[in-house]
Amino acid sequence: MPNGAQALMKTLVDSGIEVCFSNPGTSEMHFVAALDNEPKMRAVLALFEGVATGAADGYARMAGKPAATLLHLGCGLGNGLANLHNARKGKSPMLNIVGDHATYHVKYDAQLQSDIETVARNISPNFVRTSQRTEDLCQDAVEAIAAARGLPGQVSTLILPADVSWGEGAQACTLPPPAPVAGATSEQINNASAAINSGKKTAMLLGGQALRENTLLAAAKIAAHAGVTLFAETFPSRIERGAGLPAVERIAYLAEMASLQLSEFDHLILVDAKAPVSFFAYPGKQSYLVPDHCTVHTLSSEEQDAETSLNALIESLGASSAQAPLQNAKRPGRPKGKLSADKVCRAVGELMSENSIIVDEAITSGLMLNAMTAGAPRHDMITLTGGAIGQGLPSAIGAAIACPDRPVLALIGDGTAMYTNQALWTMAREHLNITTIIFNNASYSVLNVELERVGAEEVGEKAKSQLDLSGPVTNFALLAQSMGVHGSRVHTSEELLKAMEYALSKPGPHLIEAVVPESLNGIKRKILPYLLKSMPSLPAPLSKALKNKIAP
Amino acid sequence: MPNGAQALMKTLVDSGIEVCFSNPGTSEMHFVAALDNEPKMRAVLALFEGVATGAADGYARMAGKPAATLLHLGCGLGNGLANLHNARKGKSPMLNIVGDHATYHVKYDAQLQSDIETVARNISPNFVRTSQRTEDLCQDAVEAIAAARGLPGQVSTLILPADVSWGEGAQACTLPPPAPVAGATSEQINNASAAINSGKKTAMLLGGQALRENTLLAAAKIAAHAGVTLFAETFPSRIERGAGLPAVERIAYLAEMASLQLSEFDHLILVDAKAPVSFFAYPGKQSYLVPDHCTVHTLSSEEQDAETSLNALIESLGASSAQAPLQNAKRPGRPKGKLSADKVCRAVGELMSENSIIVDEAITSGLMLNAMTAGAPRHDMITLTGGAIGQGLPSAIGAAIACPDRPVLALIGDGTAMYTNQALWTMAREHLNITTIIFNNASYSVLNVELERVGAEEVGEKAKSQLDLSGPVTNFALLAQSMGVHGSRVHTSEELLKAMEYALSKPGPHLIEAVVPESLNGIKRKILPYLLKSMPSLPAPLSKALKNKIAP
Repeated sequence: MPNGAQALMKTLVDSGIEVCFSNPGTSEMHFVAALDNEPKMRAVLALFEGVATGAADGYARMAGKPAATLLHLGCGLGNGLANLHNARKGKSPMLNIVGDHATYHVKYDAQLQSDIETVARNISPNFVRTSQRTEDLCQDAVEAIAAARGLPGQVSTLILPADVSWGEGAQACTLPPPAPVAGATSEQINNASAAINSGKKTAMLLGGQALRENTLLAAAKIAAHAGVTLFAETFPSRIERGAGLPAVERIAYLAEMASLQLSEFDHLILVDAKAPVSFFAYPGKQSYLVPDHCTVHTLSSEEQDAETSLNALIESLGASSAQAPLQNAKRPGRPKGKLSADKVCRAVGELMSENSIIVDEAITSGLMLNAMTAGAPRHDMITLTGGAIGQGLPSAIGAAIACPDRPVLALIGDGTAMYTNQALWTMAREHLNITTIIFNNASYSVLNVELERVGAEEVGEKAKSQLDLSGPVTNFALLAQSMGVHGSRVHTSEELLKAMEYALSKPGPHLIEAVVPESLNGIKRKILPYLLKSMPSLPAPLSKALKNKIAP
Repeated sequence: MPNGAQALMKTLVDSGIEVCFSNPGTSEMHFVAALDNEPKMRAVLALFEGVATGAADGYARMAGKPAATLLHLGCGLGNGLANLHNARKGKSPMLNIVGDHATYHVKYDAQLQSDIETVARNISPNFVRTSQRTEDLCQDAVEAIAAARGLPGQVSTLILPADVSWGEGAQACTLPPPAPVAGATSEQINNASAAINSGKKTAMLLGGQALRENTLLAAAKIAAHAGVTLFAETFPSRIERGAGLPAVERIAYLAEMASLQLSEFDHLILVDAKAPVSFFAYPGKQSYLVPDHCTVHTLSSEEQDAETSLNALIESLGASSAQAPLQNAKRPGRPKGKLSADKVCRAVGELMSENSIIVDEAITSGLMLNAMTAGAPRHDMITLTGGAIGQGLPSAIGAAIACPDRPVLALIGDGTAMYTNQALWTMAREHLNITTIIFNNASYSVLNVELERVGAEEVGEKAKSQLDLSGPVTNFALLAQSMGVHGSRVHTSEELLKAMEYALSKPGPHLIEAVVPESLNGIKRKILPYLLKSMPSLPAPLSKALKNKIAP
């Protein structure tokens, strides 16, 4: 009979879990030893748990199925918590395997003892279990996997005491087939249909599963048939876009703008999306961004199948022969001269190849990214779903492992890059095809914007120093080289284009540090053209109102 | 009237909290803005929360009072959890201020929403509070500080909703004087006294507060008077040692050795220490390391004053005129030739100056550190109290800020250094007087030892690859340079000595990467001489038994 770890390993691969992002310690040594007998399991070592968890999230988004993480007790899980939060918000299926002390050792309160179930509670609200007996381990595992892969996808956490892992008498289990998932009810379809046929201004907000090719095409048919405006949620887990797919306007991050986007609609139909709320609260500003006069309908929830629901709505509307307008192929042209954040985005739109995966954690520097890549060849974009920065680099690892034949472009702000910079090492070790571009503006730039938005405008040098990342300015090219990644630093558009062309033509990881010094006013000036390009829904008077708000 | 953040800032400095290790986000912007009006508060920016929390821990250990951290919601706290665990285990007083969404914003479940109190539960078991009203904020703060600074020191977590922070109508509060702390009861003194006078072999285990000058001198008097053997806990929060202080043998990390150290004693007297247990459980091995025939007595617990207790015991024993033997000044000599981990420890013992603070997170590479620095000039040593790696570099920051006139030597394993490498940036920014030595053996070396200890001996290449940090080998000198720290890489003893002499003579941070390639067998061979030097308590037959266990 195999020991617990060996039977667990077999159960995992039989259940389709073929990658384990690991950062093991002593309590996980039997699991590590069990890797030797299971050729179907790929183990990817990370030097920090935030890398392992973020990679499993990125993998799930692109593979559409869970990977496992292997974490070391409560502290290892704690280190992974921020990216697990992002995974939960992105509804990524994932299985955490968290090693624990042997069951009989817990009472001694040794150094690493903590209550792991409590640590896991936030990120795994529906499945946290400590396996108590070797005989039950594999059954626990299949229940954890089943919970993770349903709709919505979830993070399951299975806590594995060392003695349950090393004990004998385990038997691998088989994952039951997934339960069938229903689409919208007839009531939901009728309500959505009635709203669309009411003659009032109607918008449809797509999120989660509804941002993939088939759902986008279905939603675009409805839009074309009935004059419905389509929106995508602000931070999609994964959105398919580019030439040949329907172009969908994203709800803006800044609440002031999102309110304007939604201000003229009488009906808002949700498809696997939440009614928009402000990311943060601000003194004297609304948290809920849907206008009072607008009625919200749910065509389908995160637990219902979006594609089935949209197709049923098409049928109900008689829209099946409508022609969805598709995005034309259009490159933005090569940038020239001194570098700035928008020129980096332009270069990405100009050079990115078909089938790229863009990981967008560029924060303020990525304001122009959507506009600049709209007509680029077809691609996927992954974004920061839960607001916990440090997700981009790890997520790129997962995406590259899920899709080894696709180039990954990770666009990362300097502040966020530092959170999980250890990801660079794993990129080098696994020789992943990832080109990382760091926007180095030596600042938590978004916080300069936020400082003003929360009404704390008159700030002095001491407060500002808390948002300032200069003195010293991190040299990301050196940082990359220190972990075995080819790194370069560029100051001009021409240098950037050359570095990108080199990186995209050579397999393996590259990092390009784009130095883009930028003032708060510079950023504000740039918000406006970004909006004009990315918010075509806005009628002219609202564009004017927006201009007055942002850059009077 | 000041707003909540401003009144809180005044309450903090009036309560003696003069440093805030911060990593703020939008919800903390009013606290950041309040820094401008409070010259007594030093704000130290960290690029990752694990750095902020570890720094506050190191600060508390050396300053003997709490610093604050400023963290961004549940995810920021999550990123800081591992080092907060170490702080809790080290009984460090500390105040976490965790920004949260405005109270009315919580219900919208925005991207960064999570249940922060649950995240904090493990690390702040006795004080987690979400401040609900601006009027109550400062009272909440003084209660949090009072809870943190008692005996034992604790991590308090105060959750600060954005609207409570920006609201008007707050008033600063005054921290009440600390409650008096009692020493051992007469029953405890009598029990300890009786054990010592029983004629049986007796040991005293010192931990926590009992490893500072006054308590060490008191314990050493008892030892000299009555033939009691002194031990220190395995991972002291802070131990004062070196020439002129009593030398105290540490309980070994490896359970097999600790059992041998304790095997011949009939009585074990605890002073702010726990009876030794194994760090991890191992198949077929004991978790509790005190032999069955040994009676355990508590002279004083973590809630009682150790110095008062030891002095009362001295009086009870009539030992006040006993002469405690003190450590002679003795440098180990300069190492020569090809570098190895023990030669690095030798160089440290040879070159370290009076009043140094050693941060020991060298893991296997530091095996010889205690022996090599025993006769060095008087110094403090800080160790990894909770087993969650990544504490050393941040802790060095805190120590350097608490003691700006003392040189800090951080001795860090390569695996652990990567967890919180962002600490290097803060060292550069604050121009801290820290010399970091990285032991680069390109391996999670301790896990190679552990793999064997858990009985998973016959492992293949795939399992071993999970403990292997080569391919690529991180270049720590470059890593340091990328963050503005002077970095060098050395391969020989002579290069190391030169680099150390340079670093110790120039203010500001330096990093020396010592390349110490080492095999598992090499480490095992070295365990033996280490033991002979660091475990003088062992009688000859036991030394022989040990030899057979470790390197037969």
